[in-house]
Amino acid sequence: MTRIDDLPVRDELRGKSPYGAPQLDVPVRLNTNENPYPLPEPLVERIAERVREAARDLNRYPDRDAVQLRTELAAYLTKTGKYPLGLENVWAANGSNEVIQQLLQTFGGPGRTAIGFEPSYSMHALIARGTGTGWISGPRNEDFTIDVAAAVEAIAEHKPDVVFITTPNNPTGNAVPPQTVLALFEAAQAAKPSMVIVDEAYIEFSHGDSLLPLLAGRPNLVISRTMSKAFGAAGLRLGYLAADPAVVDAVQLVRLPYHLSAITQATALAALEHTDTLLGYVEQLKAERDRLVAELRAIGYQVTESDANFVQFGRFADAHEVWRKILDRGVLVRDNGVPGWLRVSAGTPEENDAFLDAVRELKKELEA
Amino acid sequence: MTRIDDLPVRDELRGKSPYGAPQLDVPVRLNTNENPYPLPEPLVERIAERVREAARDLNRYPDRDAVQLRTELAAYLTKTGKYPLGLENVWAANGSNEVIQQLLQTFGGPGRTAIGFEPSYSMHALIARGTGTGWISGPRNEDFTIDVAAAVEAIAEHKPDVVFITTPNNPTGNAVPPQTVLALFEAAQAAKPSMVIVDEAYIEFSHGDSLLPLLAGRPNLVISRTMSKAFGAAGLRLGYLAADPAVVDAVQLVRLPYHLSAITQATALAALEHTDTLLGYVEQLKAERDRLVAELRAIGYQVTESDANFVQFGRFADAHEVWRKILDRGVLVRDNGVPGWLRVSAGTPEENDAFLDAVRELKKELEA
Repeated sequence: MTRIDDLPVRDELRGKSPYGAPQLDVPVRLNTNENPYPLPEPLVERIAERVREAARDLNRYPDRDAVQLRTELAAYLTKTGKYPLGLENVWAANGSNEVIQQLLQTFGGPGRTAIGFEPSYSMHALIARGTGTGWISGPRNEDFTIDVAAAVEAIAEHKPDVVFITTPNNPTGNAVPPQTVLALFEAAQAAKPSMVIVDEAYIEFSHGDSLLPLLAGRPNLVISRTMSKAFGAAGLRLGYLAADPAVVDAVQLVRLPYHLSAITQATALAALEHTDTLLGYVEQLKAERDRLVAELRAIGYQVTESDANFVQFGRFADAHEVWRKILDRGVLVRDNGVPGWLRVSAGTPEENDAFLDAVRELKKELEA
Repeated sequence: MTRIDDLPVRDELRGKSPYGAPQLDVPVRLNTNENPYPLPEPLVERIAERVREAARDLNRYPDRDAVQLRTELAAYLTKTGKYPLGLENVWAANGSNEVIQQLLQTFGGPGRTAIGFEPSYSMHALIARGTGTGWISGPRNEDFTIDVAAAVEAIAEHKPDVVFITTPNNPTGNAVPPQTVLALFEAAQAAKPSMVIVDEAYIEFSHGDSLLPLLAGRPNLVISRTMSKAFGAAGLRLGYLAADPAVVDAVQLVRLPYHLSAITQATALAALEHTDTLLGYVEQLKAERDRLVAELRAIGYQVTESDANFVQFGRFADAHEVWRKILDRGVLVRDNGVPGWLRVSAGTPEENDAFLDAVRELKKELEA
């Protein structure tokens, strides 16, 4: 049998395993920050309707520039982000992972570097590797906030071409204050100048506002977003970015032509018609997230402040062992490899109750 | 206003324009090798049905490994390709462009090179650039066949990590004989060894068979395919590959997790249920393609042998000027930049008649 290492693969891929959380069949799945609410039935019907329409023209290539979709995404951002944006400010791709890949192909790549402040969304580093971009692991405080002075120093020292800031941060949950983002942006401009990518995948769940207004007068700033979380559409794979029109022009130099299918465009447009309903679920999830934080603390766990649809809790001498014990109780949470900590996604009230029961029991067992 | 070159983009992107044929609103569009037949209405309904079902679970991430889809694609290849293949031999992505990008991220990339025999599918070189892979333009004969001795010599000289062979070739239309593919494969193994990617995007339209049986005992051979052409689903963006299971394992090291949406998987599965009907359209298109070749020759044009759903015709002192004159008559064909030649996709009988009328008229004008 031929194995991967028998093929002429790139050296840095030898001995590696694919990224991804275990997809286990468990009663309560709170491990991948999915939205627990299925799309409402009227939206499901609308998707079927718009897809039926798109399928009648499926023998033709899709709109390469996804004009209608980008226009509607811009309208959504304008409405919720307190900053006016148009088609020319927005670009969309198959998941924010592809958006980030396109940004790194444009602004990173061989001979260039990117920095992130870890622990953070681990795909930033993996996509850097996949695009030949050197990766610099920047520092974070013990409480998972960004130490501005240390971060500015790291930027000045390494002069990265791309700076990632994830807010709210994944897997820790905490938001990055706007003044921190601004300080890092200024440092990045002074050092190189470089592109700053603010990953706002979870921003709709935040107590605070989006950083979209910071785009004004900052063509080297990009904000990335996704429909996976707030729109309850992880299965759709629709990520997008907001930025200066020049950035939107630039990523079109590296995007694969016709990268976004007519079916994806139709489905996303249907979901955007139901924005208000979907944002209603977001409010429910924020309340549940706040309840998880409060109850986990009441039980006696340490909890990182959360502005996302998930909560990081600990601390454990052996987090993976605790992960397994929670799984034994029918609840799948995530071990992101942050020593001492685990992450739980906010589910439905019933799912969260099941999780809280499990960790309440476990607390007694751990203390026994 | 900020322009692309004001941003810190990679040097090799400066001054470039995005790839893509002009999307013009013209009565007869025969420029992008689309299948002119819309999907049959029962299939449109089946897509709506399967997508409705998938949309009910859209809040969850899709099957990351697309197991059902890959199983059905393998069954299709087994049925039509005269060679048994299973799930473990097949990988799928958003268009064959993404398949090729993943292959180059795995087997090409910075410090490595790929060769293609040009003119051929221009995305091979563009995706090479996008993945940091050095590009070598290999030779072709005046009649667009591959000169085996010259190609073998180029491989021996440059020792590329990846060899592209497109059969039937785009934009010229001619198929590459299996013995040529084997000779190039052997040369590539002797030189490095390197991966050989056979791009069979148009194979269903060929007078000959797929090269799938060559996969036996050749783990360094990959065959890439698409649902854009024979399945009449350019709007779906579904490309796939067949290879040794080790290749399928290897591309999973670079694929973006959850790259293929639940909606795409559902739509592709619906289309695969209607394979027989869709392959019926392929037979009609092959007959129309043969008619185009015969009539173009009868009019007095030179035509390259075609095994695809398009025909290359010429020769013109100024091909772009002729392209424009055909467009003036309401028919959009493709100027791929091959000096002296244009490419026309096989459309419906009515579309082909409109095209033939236009070029018949033009022939008189050119001779007048």
